[in-house]
Amino acid sequence: MFPKNAWYVACLPDDIVDKPLGRKICGLAMVFFRGPEGQVAALDDWCPHRGAPLSLGRVCQGKLVCGYHGLEMGCDGKTVAMPGQRVRGFPAIASYPVQERHGFIWVWPGDPALADPAKLPDLHWANNPAWAYGGGLYHIACDYRLMVDNLMDLTHETYVHADTIGQPEIDEVAPVTKVDGEHVITSRMMHNIPAPPFWKMALRGNGLADDVPVDRWQICHFTPPSHVMIEVGVAHAGHGGYDAPADRKAGSIVVDFITPETETSIWYFWGMARNFKPEDAALTDTIRQGQGKIFSEDLQMLEQQQRNHLLHPSRKLLGLNTDAGGVQARRILDRLMAEEQAAPATAAVPVAAP
Amino acid sequence: MFPKNAWYVACLPDDIVDKPLGRKICGLAMVFFRGPEGQVAALDDWCPHRGAPLSLGRVCQGKLVCGYHGLEMGCDGKTVAMPGQRVRGFPAIASYPVQERHGFIWVWPGDPALADPAKLPDLHWANNPAWAYGGGLYHIACDYRLMVDNLMDLTHETYVHADTIGQPEIDEVAPVTKVDGEHVITSRMMHNIPAPPFWKMALRGNGLADDVPVDRWQICHFTPPSHVMIEVGVAHAGHGGYDAPADRKAGSIVVDFITPETETSIWYFWGMARNFKPEDAALTDTIRQGQGKIFSEDLQMLEQQQRNHLLHPSRKLLGLNTDAGGVQARRILDRLMAEEQAAPATAAVPVAAP
Amino acid sequence: MFPKNAWYVACLPDDIVDKPLGRKICGLAMVFFRGPEGQVAALDDWCPHRGAPLSLGRVCQGKLVCGYHGLEMGCDGKTVAMPGQRVRGFPAIASYPVQERHGFIWVWPGDPALADPAKLPDLHWANNPAWAYGGGLYHIACDYRLMVDNLMDLTHETYVHADTIGQPEIDEVAPVTKVDGEHVITSRMMHNIPAPPFWKMALRGNGLADDVPVDRWQICHFTPPSHVMIEVGVAHAGHGGYDAPADRKAGSIVVDFITPETETSIWYFWGMARNFKPEDAALTDTIRQGQGKIFSEDLQMLEQQQRNHLLHPSRKLLGLNTDAGGVQARRILDRLMAEEQAAPATAAVPVAAP
Repeated sequence: MFPKNAWYVACLPDDIVDKPLGRKICGLAMVFFRGPEGQVAALDDWCPHRGAPLSLGRVCQGKLVCGYHGLEMGCDGKTVAMPGQRVRGFPAIASYPVQERHGFIWVWPGDPALADPAKLPDLHWANNPAWAYGGGLYHIACDYRLMVDNLMDLTHETYVHADTIGQPEIDEVAPVTKVDGEHVITSRMMHNIPAPPFWKMALRGNGLADDVPVDRWQICHFTPPSHVMIEVGVAHAGHGGYDAPADRKAGSIVVDFITPETETSIWYFWGMARNFKPEDAALTDTIRQGQGKIFSEDLQMLEQQQRNHLLHPSRKLLGLNTDAGGVQARRILDRLMAEEQAAPATAAVPVAAP
Repeated sequence: MFPKNAWYVACLPDDIVDKPLGRKICGLAMVFFRGPEGQVAALDDWCPHRGAPLSLGRVCQGKLVCGYHGLEMGCDGKTVAMPGQRVRGFPAIASYPVQERHGFIWVWPGDPALADPAKLPDLHWANNPAWAYGGGLYHIACDYRLMVDNLMDLTHETYVHADTIGQPEIDEVAPVTKVDGEHVITSRMMHNIPAPPFWKMALRGNGLADDVPVDRWQICHFTPPSHVMIEVGVAHAGHGGYDAPADRKAGSIVVDFITPETETSIWYFWGMARNFKPEDAALTDTIRQGQGKIFSEDLQMLEQQQRNHLLHPSRKLLGLNTDAGGVQARRILDRLMAEEQAAPATAAVPVAAP
Repeated sequence: MFPKNAWYVACLPDDIVDKPLGRKICGLAMVFFRGPEGQVAALDDWCPHRGAPLSLGRVCQGKLVCGYHGLEMGCDGKTVAMPGQRVRGFPAIASYPVQERHGFIWVWPGDPALADPAKLPDLHWANNPAWAYGGGLYHIACDYRLMVDNLMDLTHETYVHADTIGQPEIDEVAPVTKVDGEHVITSRMMHNIPAPPFWKMALRGNGLADDVPVDRWQICHFTPPSHVMIEVGVAHAGHGGYDAPADRKAGSIVVDFITPETETSIWYFWGMARNFKPEDAALTDTIRQGQGKIFSEDLQMLEQQQRNHLLHPSRKLLGLNTDAGGVQARRILDRLMAEEQAAPATAAVPVAAP
C-alpha cells in the first residue's frame, strides 16, 4: 500500500539520454523518455499492438519507436504512426504526469487530474550555486516504510554504522518528534562530544580542526509520500551548534527519496547536499563514496527485516519514543491512503489499453 | 494451453547417444533413450519404485537403469528387472509415442491411440543430398504462440534484426495471408531492392554478385501444432524472383519447431535448410552462426513481452493485417484444442503411475 | 510434517564462537548464541522492537545485542536493556530448549515442558578417547524422510556410489529389518567378497592387507526423529565378520543427523566415528574428505526426487523388502506426529511475540 496521488522520484535526467528507461513504480510498469522538445514523458510500458515493452525500443525525433514492429508512440500515449498502418483507431495507453525539476524526474502514478506541479517538494539547495549535490540509487527488497522508519530513527547509526557516523553519544540523547500537518520532524541535539570519522572528514574538508569537541545535530524531516530530508552537521563546541557561524561548522542535508517499486521493494535515491566548498568536485565524490558505503550497510538489515515480517505478518512491533518519527509518518500515510480509497475516481484516471 | 495430440520435436539424435535425456514437454516430465535395437523410447521420467527421475540413470543394453536402486525399465514403461526383486506386479509408467525421422526425435504427448506417424510433417529437404541443414536450440521463457506470432510476421526483422536481415523495404510491402485447411501461408514479395547483409553473404556464398538489386521473398508456412517453415531468398532483380533459375538466386528454408515446455516456456529448435553448395560444411557453419546470432536477438523481446502479458492477462492485443498469419494460426490452434477438450478419452490414454 | 517434540542437531559449537547464528529449524527462524556462563541459548530470531533478525547482531557479555537499535536480549527471550528505554513491558520472544552434548548443539522445537535432556541420544563413542570423529554439513532441498529412506536402504550404494562404497555384491544379499519400539534396524551381512575402494583405504589405514576377501556388514539404526547411525565395516573373511577381533577388521559408525529446515529442505549433519587409530588426525581428515565426496553424490538424486514428488504429489511409491527400514521409520514418525497433534498443548508452549 502506497499513496498514488503523489510525486515520486522516478529517475535522473542522465537515465534517459540516449534510450528509453523501463522502470516499475508503485506496481506500474512505466517507460520514460524525452519527447520532441526534450520534455520528459512517462507512459505505460506496453505497446498497444502486441503488448511488447516499449522500453526495449528507441527514441526517434521525440517519438518512442517500439523495438518489435516499429509502432511510433507519442508522449500522450497515442500512437502517431506505424509502417503500413492507419493508427487512428489504435487504443491509447496510459500516460503519467511527469515533471523534471531539481535535478530529478518526478512521476505521479495516481489520478492525473490531481497532479499539480505546485505539490512538488521545494528543494531550496537544488538550484543554488552555494550548494553541491552528489548521490546514488539502491534497489532494496523492502517495504518503503521500513526505510522511512530507518531514516526517522537515527539511533541505528550506533549499531549499523558504528565505524563511520555511529557513536554511543547518540543513544544518550532522546530525540524529539513534532508533527506539523503532514510534516514530521524528529530532532536530536548532542553537545560537546567527539566527532565520529565521517564528520572528522567533513570538518577537514571544510578546513576546520577535527580533533576538538563538537556539537552535533540531526533533524529529520518526513513529508509524504516518502521523502526524508535530514539536516545533519557538527560545529566546534560552544559556538551555537546548529546556529553556529559558517566558519565554525560543517553541515549538510541527507537527501532520501524512497520510491516504491512493489509492495516489498524500493528504488532508493540517496544523496547529500552541502553548502561548504560547493565547487570542490573531488570532495563531492569523496562524500558520495563515503555515503554510498554507509548506506549500503543498511541493505542487509532492511531486506532481512522485511523477510522476517513476511514470515510473521501479524506480529505487532513496538513503538518507542525513538520510533515516534516513523510512527507519525505511517499515521499520515495511513490517512492519505484512506482518503484515496474513499475518493471517487475522476474521469481522467489513466487509460489502460483495453 | 497447447494441442496434445500432435507430433513435437523433442530432441536431436545426438542428445541421447550415451545417456538418457530428461526433458519436460507440454508440461510432462519425460525421459528419452534408445532401446535394444536402437529405437527411441520416451517414458514418464519417474521410477515406479521411489519416484526418482529415471533420467539420472544410465542405459544398459537398451534398458533404462534407475540411478538410485538399479530398477531396469523397458521401452514400454514396464519394469524388466530389479536386483533381488520380482517385478511382475510393479505398476507401469506412461510411455509416449515417439518417432525418429528427418534428423529429429518426435514425441506425441497426447492420446497414443491417435499417434499416427503419417501425421509427421513431410520435410522434403531432410533426406535429400541436394540440401544441407544446420541449426540449434534455444530455451525461451514465453508462450509458444508468441514465437509463432514472431515468425508469421516478419516486419519485426526491420526492428529486431536491423543489422542483418532487416531493411526498411520490408515495411513497404504488405504481406498476404491465405489459409488452406490447417495450413496458414503469409507471403511478402519485394522487388528491386538492395540485399541486406545476411543475403549479401549468401549471394557470395553461392558465387553471385552481392552489389546488384535483388528481388526478395518471404513465404511463411504454419502448420499445427507449432511448426513454421519459411521460404526465404533473393534473386538478382528481374530474373523471376522466387521462380528465377538456380544460378541467379540464393534461397533457403528457415526451419522452426516450437515445442512447449510449460505454458510459458519453449524449446525452440531453429535451423536453415539450403539447396546451394550443400557439400560446403564451412558455409553451413557460417550460416548457423549467423542465424544463431540473429535469432538470439528475439529472446529478450519475447521474454519481456511474456512478462508484460502476465502482468496484464486480460488486455487485448491488436490484430493488424501484418498479424494475420499469427491470428489465423491461433484460430486453428483454438479449434484443435477445443476438439481435444470435447473428444472422449480413448482407453489407451497414457498410464500414469498409480 | 515433522515431530516437534524431539531433539534435533541445530549446529556445532564452532558455529557460535564469535557471533550469533541464524538458522531455520522445523520451519522456525531461530538464533543461537552463548549466554554469560557460556551456555547455549536458542531464541526466536526476531527482535521484539521492530522485527529485525537478532542473528544480524552481536553477543556482548552473554547478551544478544540487536544489530539495528541495540536492544539487549537475554537467554530466556526477555529483553534485558535498551539504550534510553525502560524494557520491563517489552514482550518476550520464544526461547527454545537447547543442550550442548556429544559435540553438537541440540534444540527442541516443540513444547518446552516435554524437553527432557534424558531423551538425548546416547552416543557412546562421542566422549571416548578410543574413538575419533569427523564430519560435515550439507544443505539439501528435500523432505527429511527422503534422506531417512536413503540411509535405511543401502542398495543405492551400488548405483549412486559405484566408484567408492558400491559393489554388486550388495544387491545379492537381502537386508533384514527389525523394529524394536521406536528403534528400526536394517542389517545386511556379506561374506567373502572383495573390499570396495573406500574399505581398502580403511584397511590400509588400519595396517591391514587390503587385497584379501572380506566379510562386510551394514547395520542401520533409525531412531526418531531422524537420526540414523550405521555400523559399517569389513573384516578379513572367516574371522567372525562383525564379531572379528579388532586386529582383523576396520569398522566405523556412519553418523547422520537430519534436521528439517522446512517441509522440503534439510540440514544434513553427516560424519564418521571410528575406533581404530583414533589419534591419527590425518586419517580423520582423509576419511572426512572421502565421505564428503561420497555423500555429495546423493544430493542431486535427492533434490530431483523431491522435485518429482512435488510434480506428482498423489502418486504412490512401492515399499519393497529393501525399503522396509524407511517404511518402518515413517510408520513410527506418523505415529509420533499423530500423537503430537492429538496432545493438548501445555501452558509452557513457546511464547511468540504478540
